[in-house]
Amino acid sequence: MLSQEENELLTRVGPGTPMGEMLRRYWLPALLSSELPEPDGYPLRRLRLLGESLVAFRDSNGRIGVLGEHCPHRGASLFFARNEECGLRCVYHGWKFDAEGNCLDMPNEPSDSAYRAKIKQVSYRTRERNGMIWVYMGSAAEPPALPDLEWNLYPESHGYISKRIQKCNWAQALEGGIDSSHVPFLHGKLETPSTAEDLNAKSYLPNSFYYADRTPQFEILETEYGCHIASRRNAGPDDYYWRINEFLMPFHTLLPPTTLAETPTWGAHAWVPVDDETCVTWSMNWSTKPLSAEEMDFLRNGNMLHAAEKELAPETSAPEGKWSPAGNLENDYLIDYEVQRTKFFTGIPHLWLQDHAIQESMGPIYDRRNEHLGASDAGVIKARQMWLRSARALRDHGTLPPGLLQPQSYRIHPIATVLPRSEPWLEALKDQLFVTGAPL
Amino acid sequence: MLSQEENELLTRVGPGTPMGEMLRRYWLPALLSSELPEPDGYPLRRLRLLGESLVAFRDSNGRIGVLGEHCPHRGASLFFARNEECGLRCVYHGWKFDAEGNCLDMPNEPSDSAYRAKIKQVSYRTRERNGMIWVYMGSAAEPPALPDLEWNLYPESHGYISKRIQKCNWAQALEGGIDSSHVPFLHGKLETPSTAEDLNAKSYLPNSFYYADRTPQFEILETEYGCHIASRRNAGPDDYYWRINEFLMPFHTLLPPTTLAETPTWGAHAWVPVDDETCVTWSMNWSTKPLSAEEMDFLRNGNMLHAAEKELAPETSAPEGKWSPAGNLENDYLIDYEVQRTKFFTGIPHLWLQDHAIQESMGPIYDRRNEHLGASDAGVIKARQMWLRSARALRDHGTLPPGLLQPQSYRIHPIATVLPRSEPWLEALKDQLFVTGAPL
Amino acid sequence: MLSQEENELLTRVGPGTPMGEMLRRYWLPALLSSELPEPDGYPLRRLRLLGESLVAFRDSNGRIGVLGEHCPHRGASLFFARNEECGLRCVYHGWKFDAEGNCLDMPNEPSDSAYRAKIKQVSYRTRERNGMIWVYMGSAAEPPALPDLEWNLYPESHGYISKRIQKCNWAQALEGGIDSSHVPFLHGKLETPSTAEDLNAKSYLPNSFYYADRTPQFEILETEYGCHIASRRNAGPDDYYWRINEFLMPFHTLLPPTTLAETPTWGAHAWVPVDDETCVTWSMNWSTKPLSAEEMDFLRNGNMLHAAEKELAPETSAPEGKWSPAGNLENDYLIDYEVQRTKFFTGIPHLWLQDHAIQESMGPIYDRRNEHLGASDAGVIKARQMWLRSARALRDHGTLPPGLLQPQSYRIHPIATVLPRSEPWLEALKDQLFVTGAPL
Repeated sequence: MLSQEENELLTRVGPGTPMGEMLRRYWLPALLSSELPEPDGYPLRRLRLLGESLVAFRDSNGRIGVLGEHCPHRGASLFFARNEECGLRCVYHGWKFDAEGNCLDMPNEPSDSAYRAKIKQVSYRTRERNGMIWVYMGSAAEPPALPDLEWNLYPESHGYISKRIQKCNWAQALEGGIDSSHVPFLHGKLETPSTAEDLNAKSYLPNSFYYADRTPQFEILETEYGCHIASRRNAGPDDYYWRINEFLMPFHTLLPPTTLAETPTWGAHAWVPVDDETCVTWSMNWSTKPLSAEEMDFLRNGNMLHAAEKELAPETSAPEGKWSPAGNLENDYLIDYEVQRTKFFTGIPHLWLQDHAIQESMGPIYDRRNEHLGASDAGVIKARQMWLRSARALRDHGTLPPGLLQPQSYRIHPIATVLPRSEPWLEALKDQLFVTGAPL
Repeated sequence: MLSQEENELLTRVGPGTPMGEMLRRYWLPALLSSELPEPDGYPLRRLRLLGESLVAFRDSNGRIGVLGEHCPHRGASLFFARNEECGLRCVYHGWKFDAEGNCLDMPNEPSDSAYRAKIKQVSYRTRERNGMIWVYMGSAAEPPALPDLEWNLYPESHGYISKRIQKCNWAQALEGGIDSSHVPFLHGKLETPSTAEDLNAKSYLPNSFYYADRTPQFEILETEYGCHIASRRNAGPDDYYWRINEFLMPFHTLLPPTTLAETPTWGAHAWVPVDDETCVTWSMNWSTKPLSAEEMDFLRNGNMLHAAEKELAPETSAPEGKWSPAGNLENDYLIDYEVQRTKFFTGIPHLWLQDHAIQESMGPIYDRRNEHLGASDAGVIKARQMWLRSARALRDHGTLPPGLLQPQSYRIHPIATVLPRSEPWLEALKDQLFVTGAPL
Repeated sequence: MLSQEENELLTRVGPGTPMGEMLRRYWLPALLSSELPEPDGYPLRRLRLLGESLVAFRDSNGRIGVLGEHCPHRGASLFFARNEECGLRCVYHGWKFDAEGNCLDMPNEPSDSAYRAKIKQVSYRTRERNGMIWVYMGSAAEPPALPDLEWNLYPESHGYISKRIQKCNWAQALEGGIDSSHVPFLHGKLETPSTAEDLNAKSYLPNSFYYADRTPQFEILETEYGCHIASRRNAGPDDYYWRINEFLMPFHTLLPPTTLAETPTWGAHAWVPVDDETCVTWSMNWSTKPLSAEEMDFLRNGNMLHAAEKELAPETSAPEGKWSPAGNLENDYLIDYEVQRTKFFTGIPHLWLQDHAIQESMGPIYDRRNEHLGASDAGVIKARQMWLRSARALRDHGTLPPGLLQPQSYRIHPIATVLPRSEPWLEALKDQLFVTGAPL
C-alpha cells in the first residue's frame, strides 16, 4: 500500500516531476533501428516519451535525430518535415534543424539575419546499438554509457525484439513483470505439464515445479544496478527450484527460462513510460549465438514473449495504433470462457496478452491505497523502495540514481535451476549470473 | 429552477455524496436473472452502479454475488475471474472470494498465513425475485425488504422486462417519466385517433382524450412511498379523464395504460444511476395472469415500452454497448423529417426512443438554472422536493428516506379512467389503486 | 511570443470573455443560404458559435431564425423541433418560438396563463445577403451594418463559397492565413514554375516570383478596418513584386491572386470561432461578373481555395462531420512521402489541406510562449496587437472595436503586381485597392 503522495510520486513522469527527472538520467529504449531504415528516409516517427512529443529521423549520414515535435518558429509539427541533407526542414516556412537542434537554415528570413543563431530546437542525444535506438533526455553534459544489458550487446542476428503499447502506467506494468508468483495462475494450464513437456518448452509457460509448489519463498537482494528477486520452490524432499528474476533500474527486467532443456534463448523486458497513462512494453529474446532462420521465424510469429504482427492493430497509421494489441478492453481481450473452463486458467490467448490485459485492467493509474500486498510481493515492494528513494534522493540532494555509472553491472543473466536445499543460491550461482561471453 | 447547489445535490450519486448515500439505502434493480443464467456460468457481468465498478456472478449454489471489480490484492479486474466452487478466483494470483467478499483461498501465499482472514473484498447484498436481481449498496446491518412493486411480485411468465443505457443523469430521465403532459406532443400523431383505435391500443400512444384537452390540470398527493401525480382532462361536458401516474422513491414510476379496452398489461420504469452522467432505464409490462406466447413475443419485439433487441447496438461486447440504442446523437436518433411532416409529431421512431432522445438532448447533466417550469411540471417539482428533502434529512439528521420501511406501500396500480366531474378522484379510485391480487 | 495571460485573452471566446465580447460586436458568417433552402424546411441546422449551441431555421416567411439550442422550458433540444407557421415548436411539450425568441404558444399550460409572455428564448439577429447567412450575437439595440466585403456584395452567380471545420483555435488558423511567407514552402513545388505556367495559374500555388526571392520584406499599415500586409519580393534588377494581403477585423482575410494573367477570381477567408478549440474556415472566390457553368464547376470541384465535397467526410449526419476533411490527424492528412520527395515540398494533397494540416498540427490551442517570431511574422504580430488592444479597450473603456461603424471601409481588393523599385506601393496602388464597381 502506498499513500496518495507516494503513488503520485511513483507514477508521474512529465518534465519537472521527481520521477520524471530521475528517469531522464537514464538512457531510454525508444525505437527499433528498423523503424528508421534508411538515411533521409520516411516516414518520420512520432515518438512520445515521458510526456513529451517528439519526432525521430535518420539523417543523411545515418545518424538518428530526436527533436521536439513542434517547430520553435510557430509550432508546426515536424512530423511533416522534409528529411534532407543532414537535417529536418519544416514544411511550413522551411526552417531547418540538424540532429542537435541547431537551426541550419531560415529561408524566409533576411539572409543577413543573426536570428538563426539564437534558435535552438529541443533535441535529445541518441545512441544506436544492435538494432535498438536509445534516447537520453537528461541534461548532463556527458550522458552515461549505455547499460551493458546482454540483449543489446549481441548483434541483431542473435535475437528478436518487439514492442507493444499498454494503456496503463509504466510502474504497474513493470510490477507485473517482476511478480513471478502469478505465473502458474495467469499463464497456467489446468493440467500439470509432464517433465517431457518441460524439457522441450519453447515458451514461458510454467513448468511442473510451479504446479508442485505454488507458494514460492522470496529472497530479495539489492545490487548496484537494482536487485535479484530470488524465488524458491520445493523440488522433491532434498532440493529447491530456484528462479532468479532481475530488476535493473529504472525499468528493465530479466526473466529466467522455464524450460528444463538447455536454454535456447534468454528473455527481457523494458517498460518505458510514454506518459503517465501509457507505456511501451519492449520484449526481447536472444541467444549467445546467431539464431537459425527457423528460430527467428518462431520468435517473429508470436511465440515466447512476442506478439505477432497480426495480433497487433495494423489498420491505423498512428504509431500508437500500429503497436496496440487487437485484443483490448473493447473486446474483453478476446477471452474465451470455454478455454478457461477446459484448458487454461485464464482463457485469454497469448502469454503476453494475458499480462497485458491484467495490467491494464487495474485502470490507467492504479490507486495503490487500495492494494493488499502479501509475502509474494517482496520484489514489487523492493522495486518501489528503490524508485521512491532514488527519486527523492535526486530531488533533495542531487544524488545520482543506482546503476547509472556502473553500466557493466547490468551484465546479468536471469538464472533458473535446481539446487540442494543446503546450498545458498547466491554462492552457487554467482558465476552463472554474471554475463561473461558477450562482446563489448 | 434549481440553484447550482441544489442541482449538484440532486445529480451527484457517487460514494459520500448526500444523494448517493440516500440511494444506497434502497434496493437497486441491477441485472436480469437471465443475464446470469447458470451456476458457475459465464460471462461474468460488468456492472456499474452509483459510480462504483462491480462484477456480478452466480455461484455454484445459484446465489448471486456482486463484488467490487478490482481484486483487493493488486487491483486486477475480477471480470476475468474463474467462477468456481462457490467463489470467484482472480486469474492473476488465484485469490478466491465468495459472494460475501470473504477470501477463501490465497494459493500464492504461505499456507499457514493469517493474512487471508484480514482480507475482505467489497461485496454487496443481493436478492433475486421473479427475474430481477436487486443489489443493496447500503451499510445497514439488515437491509430493508424489497419493495412490493407489482411488476416484481408476479413470476416471469406474467410479464416482460427490458433495459437500455441512457447517456444522461438519472434524475432528468426520470423527470421525463413522470411528466405526462408531453405525451400528445412527443408521442403524438398528427391525426387524432378514433375511439376504435383507443379501444384496441396496444401501446402507450396518446388516446383521443389527450388530443381533446392538451392542458391537463394536476393534483399531486404525497404518500408513504412517494406521490400520486393525478392529471385531469376534460372528457365531454360532465366528465373528466383521470390519469394517476405514480412516483415511488427513489426512482420508480408507474404508467397508467392509454388503451380504453380492458387493460392487458401494466407499465413501469425504474431509472437507476450508473454514474452521474449515465443511467439504466428499466421498462416493465406485466399482467395479473400468464402471458400467451403471442403476447410475450409482442412485448419482446419492440412494442409497448420496449426496445427490440435489433434496435439496440449489438456489435460491442461491453454491457454498455449491448444495451445502448442504435439510434443515438451521432445519427440524430434516426429522425425522419418526412414522417414528422406527415404522420407523427416528432419523426423519431419508437415511443421509447422519443423519450430517450429528448432526455439525452438536454445534455449529460442538465443545468436546471436555465429551466422555466410551468403548471404542468407539478409532478417534477414534487419529486425534486422529496429527493432533496430526503437526502438532506439523511445527511443532517440520519432520517431514513420515505418508503424504506413500508415495502407494502409500493403495492400501487397506475390507474386511468373517466369519472363524473363531481366525483373526487382519490375517493373514487382508492380501491383500484391498491394492488390486492399479487402473491407475497 | 505571448505571455500565458495574453494567449488566454487571445484564444478564449465564450460568453463573458473579453475576446468573446469583442467578437460579439461583429456580424459572424454562420451558414450558407443553401443550408436552409426553403421556408419551414428540414433538417434544421445545428450551429455552434463562440461556444454557444444554437439551432437555425428558415421560417414560413423565409426569414432566418437562430435560437439557443435548448428549450427554455426543460432544456430539450430544439434541433428536433417542428418548423411550422413562423416558428419552431419544441417536440417535447409543444412550446413554440418565433425567430425573435418570443413564445407564441404553450399548449400544455392553461390557456389563460400569463406565463407565456414571460418566456423568451435566446435568439440572435440574422441577415442574409448573396448566399451567406450572418448572425449578430451582440446586445446592441441596433447592430451595425454588414461589412462591405466584396465577396458578399455580388450575387451568388458571381462566386463560390465553401467551408470546413478545423480542430484548432480560430486565431492560430487565421495567423496561417495572413502569413504569406509560407507559400513557396508549404504550397511549393520542387521545380520552379515557368512564366507560362504563372500566366495561366488557376490556383494559389506560388508563382515564379516566390521562388526567385523567398525572403519577402514586409510593410504593415494599419487601416480603419484592420491592416494592409504588404510584402515585397525582388523582381529583376529594377522592380519589386508586391503582394498586398488584407486583414479585416475581426477574422476576415483577403488573398491577392498568384496568377500573372488577368485575375479571373478574387479570394477571401473568414475564420469563425465555433468554440475555443474549433473554428469554421470559410473560403470564397468571386468575380465582378457572373461565372460560367464551367468556371463554377471548377471551383466546386476542389480547385482554388476549396475542398471538393468528396474530400470532406460525408458519412456522419452531424454538421461537424459533414464539413470535416477526410484527411485528418488519424491518417496523417494523407501525406504521400513519394510526392514530397519528387514533386511537392509537402506531400499533403490539396492547397487547403496543407494549410489545414499545419494549423491543426500546432495543437488545439497553440501555446505562444513557445514560439519564436521572425521578421516574416510582421502581419501576425500586427493582427495580435489589434485583437488584444481592441478586446482590452472594449473591456476596460467600452471602446468599440475597429471597422464596426465603417462597413464601407471593408471595400478592399487584395492586389499583387510588379512595380518599379522607386515607386511607393500605397501611392501606386491606392486606386486599385479600393472596390468601386460592386453593388450596394
